[in-house]
Amino acid sequence: MRLSGLSFVAGKRISRGSTPFRAPDAATSSLLEPAYIGSSLEDVNEAANAATSAFLIFGNTPASDRAALLRRIAAALDARSAEIVARAMAETALPQARLEGEVARTSGQLRLFAAVIEEGSWLDARIDRAIPDRKPLPRPDIRSMLVPIGPVAVFGASNFPLAFSVAGGDTASALAAGNPVIVKAHLAHPGTSEIVAAVITDAVTQAGLPAGVFSMLYDDGFVIGQELVRHPAIHAVAFTGSHRGGKALMAIAANRERPIPCFCEMGSLNPVFVLPGALASDPVSRAKGIYGSFTLGAGQFCTKPGMVFVPDAVCADLFRQELRNLTAAGSGFTMLTPGIADAYRVGLEKRASLGISGTLAESSSPQTCAALFEASLENLETHALLREEIFGPSTLLISWSNREALLRAAQALDGHLTATLLGTEADVAENQDLIAVLEQKVGRLIFNGYPTGVEVSHAMVHGGPYPATSDSRYTSVGSRAILRFVRPRCYQNFPQIALPEALRDENPLGIFRLVDGVLTRDALTP
Amino acid sequence: MRLSGLSFVAGKRISRGSTPFRAPDAATSSLLEPAYIGSSLEDVNEAANAATSAFLIFGNTPASDRAALLRRIAAALDARSAEIVARAMAETALPQARLEGEVARTSGQLRLFAAVIEEGSWLDARIDRAIPDRKPLPRPDIRSMLVPIGPVAVFGASNFPLAFSVAGGDTASALAAGNPVIVKAHLAHPGTSEIVAAVITDAVTQAGLPAGVFSMLYDDGFVIGQELVRHPAIHAVAFTGSHRGGKALMAIAANRERPIPCFCEMGSLNPVFVLPGALASDPVSRAKGIYGSFTLGAGQFCTKPGMVFVPDAVCADLFRQELRNLTAAGSGFTMLTPGIADAYRVGLEKRASLGISGTLAESSSPQTCAALFEASLENLETHALLREEIFGPSTLLISWSNREALLRAAQALDGHLTATLLGTEADVAENQDLIAVLEQKVGRLIFNGYPTGVEVSHAMVHGGPYPATSDSRYTSVGSRAILRFVRPRCYQNFPQIALPEALRDENPLGIFRLVDGVLTRDALTP
Repeated sequence: MRLSGLSFVAGKRISRGSTPFRAPDAATSSLLEPAYIGSSLEDVNEAANAATSAFLIFGNTPASDRAALLRRIAAALDARSAEIVARAMAETALPQARLEGEVARTSGQLRLFAAVIEEGSWLDARIDRAIPDRKPLPRPDIRSMLVPIGPVAVFGASNFPLAFSVAGGDTASALAAGNPVIVKAHLAHPGTSEIVAAVITDAVTQAGLPAGVFSMLYDDGFVIGQELVRHPAIHAVAFTGSHRGGKALMAIAANRERPIPCFCEMGSLNPVFVLPGALASDPVSRAKGIYGSFTLGAGQFCTKPGMVFVPDAVCADLFRQELRNLTAAGSGFTMLTPGIADAYRVGLEKRASLGISGTLAESSSPQTCAALFEASLENLETHALLREEIFGPSTLLISWSNREALLRAAQALDGHLTATLLGTEADVAENQDLIAVLEQKVGRLIFNGYPTGVEVSHAMVHGGPYPATSDSRYTSVGSRAILRFVRPRCYQNFPQIALPEALRDENPLGIFRLVDGVLTRDALTP
Repeated sequence: MRLSGLSFVAGKRISRGSTPFRAPDAATSSLLEPAYIGSSLEDVNEAANAATSAFLIFGNTPASDRAALLRRIAAALDARSAEIVARAMAETALPQARLEGEVARTSGQLRLFAAVIEEGSWLDARIDRAIPDRKPLPRPDIRSMLVPIGPVAVFGASNFPLAFSVAGGDTASALAAGNPVIVKAHLAHPGTSEIVAAVITDAVTQAGLPAGVFSMLYDDGFVIGQELVRHPAIHAVAFTGSHRGGKALMAIAANRERPIPCFCEMGSLNPVFVLPGALASDPVSRAKGIYGSFTLGAGQFCTKPGMVFVPDAVCADLFRQELRNLTAAGSGFTMLTPGIADAYRVGLEKRASLGISGTLAESSSPQTCAALFEASLENLETHALLREEIFGPSTLLISWSNREALLRAAQALDGHLTATLLGTEADVAENQDLIAVLEQKVGRLIFNGYPTGVEVSHAMVHGGPYPATSDSRYTSVGSRAILRFVRPRCYQNFPQIALPEALRDENPLGIFRLVDGVLTRDALTP
């Protein structure tokens, strides 16, 4: 399609905002066409009000209609994959195969949520039947289920131009539940965002749904995004990005007249623990695995392993040396944006300036190199800087000699998305105390794998204790992500005709329901 | 038992706080013995740290152990009902039968959560099996379930000295999930709280669990409660009380270094809509029902109907007159505390001073009377005061003549816990638009019943959009209340031996699990 540089406000293309901006080509820093017009406060208001009206209809659509919408979007994304990937390659410098995979991941995600809402058990439908002769008082008939919470604001992420952006997991799960979505597109890939927004807008139109179900705004600063979160029509926020950005949105969401939930995923160091068995059996392939994981996507994943704990013993020498060798050869990474590249370089310089003992292995090119820092447990405790994320292809190797000190270091960890253990089953048995500590620190524990590569499935948890996310009770990946955007609603003594289908006696949707405390798909018999 | 006036800090009786205070006898205002010692900051810290240590053990206990603890507490409460009720009657002036019922409700609630955690489907256990030959990449084995979030701070409520206090629904659901609890006892019933806290403390000891599983602090001001919410060891807060109190705790919870969820239930006006069919068939018994509901427990329920919408037509005359007659005769209520009685009187005076058209029917006694205010839709829109809760036996009758205006008034409602419709099934069919509006405003819709009398069951939702509660996504009554205090945790590629029982192949707990997207109790076969 021919890119226009305009926002999408409830199906209309709008241009009444501020100074235009252009996305840089990530590889060359030259500016790409067209110019994009930042949205106006009027756009925010119009999109939000349209979402409110649309919600009254969309929030009550049958699951099958919403599933059809999600599949329609998925099919159109797949059909336009080449066009999307071409623009995304220019805007992000991510490789073609990765972006093709990301389109497939995004359409797969939409189809997963379609299947989830059709299956129906996610609704948590519950029925407690009346007991008219109960003493001292009769029990009324009580039924409840999850319902959509209301219009959701979604912030596109820099590092996933598709899977965590306009039609990503946040949008897919919010729409699946029946909530209109207003996306604030990420500045770094406005063109990719425009194509995807056009796909969604067309799908909404073709499905005969109200246009207010979807809008997308541009913002080359912070005002539009902040105003969106402040708008009374917005009922929840989903954001993937920096700690600073997430904190700012959390504060706005909590201090509104009516506070709303704000789901921010804000980065993580994803500690890896290399256990003795891993060093004894195959240290070189473990080093390769870690190198591959911390440099994947130029280290621009929130699940990048940013700390690797390894015993300070002879057995670790081969592992260490291999990691140094790989890192020293690891140049030529292109970052998502010039800003991210700058921040990465500054991060490396700050860390190098600590003068910590250990080796800094760095490749020749100053801007796009992999970097390996080495430190002791004592360094880690002393220097807060070592506990901060560097977004990019670097990691920190932390040596330990005293196991008690290692446990204390684990205990001192902040919240992270993941923790990884590399070793044998015997290592696991011997490290139950370490695992118990890590269970309190993260959303996902990995054994003999790497934290990057987040599976989109029912059981996935991509979340974790603060500051990894704003709220450890939710995941932004996997089918549980839909639970962020719903609330329970209860009907007491309601006539059948006025009940949602999911709660009617005959169970017309054939879904699992908790009837008097027992999960069943049976219809209710009088 | 002989009351001591001391706090419970992880099993120890502590006295190192501030100036002692005595609870007033609610009926006579004379001060009851013994004097209670407000807790100290040292107590907060000690209780919180003990909870942290206890959590590592308690959070990993089998569900059967926690169910046994809950049942032990329930049995002891029942056994000591007479003693508890005697003290509670003096402290709250609530009638004996109500308090006996409340003890039974409280022990019933504990047993409900015991059954819930034994049944196990609440864990939301999920397994996505590995697909080693998937292309382009193998799928790892991913499993997840809900786990306890960490120590919970519970604030006792003034109006339910048992069911929403020390061993109430918040404590029961937090313990059921595996979280230690620290209660801040309500000032109005310290003696009742002490007996119940002794019951829980004994049960924890007898079960051989760490003493830090339970503590209870006293506070005759706000400092201790606030410090508790600020303490880094606390992971969630549950509060039932005033809007001002709830807002203060929400702000502390959101602005901590690590923000935590804060579940506040802060009052509600629970609008009732009397529909034409109800007036045609049996207006007098509807009026009796509403009178009974708004004066139940001296109107000190968060589900008290505080607004009653009724058509301004001849057909409503009998209804209106009956409500006025009942109200005029309705004196002799004793409020929970002298402070609540004062606030009620002030509330009535402020409302009367509005000079709204309509009738103020009020009984003779100035302090303990029922009150009925009457207003138009226009009054309701003009006077914000009419949209504020008066805690006590009063309600507001709102007449409407224009149905469009009624719909607009419904649309303008804030969030409430409940909305009630009185009428025929034909009324329901004719008011689908009104119902659709109310569905967005409340957590529970009631047909031909009254909002007071909240059933403790699986399907109950005692919650609703802000400002009724801090977070519409949760309920504080019913088995779903346990979901406030958990988070999901995921294990990727973990050896069987290191998995929680709920996630092991053989399904040793025999619980429902979502396996590759399908709910089943089957074991996994290799």
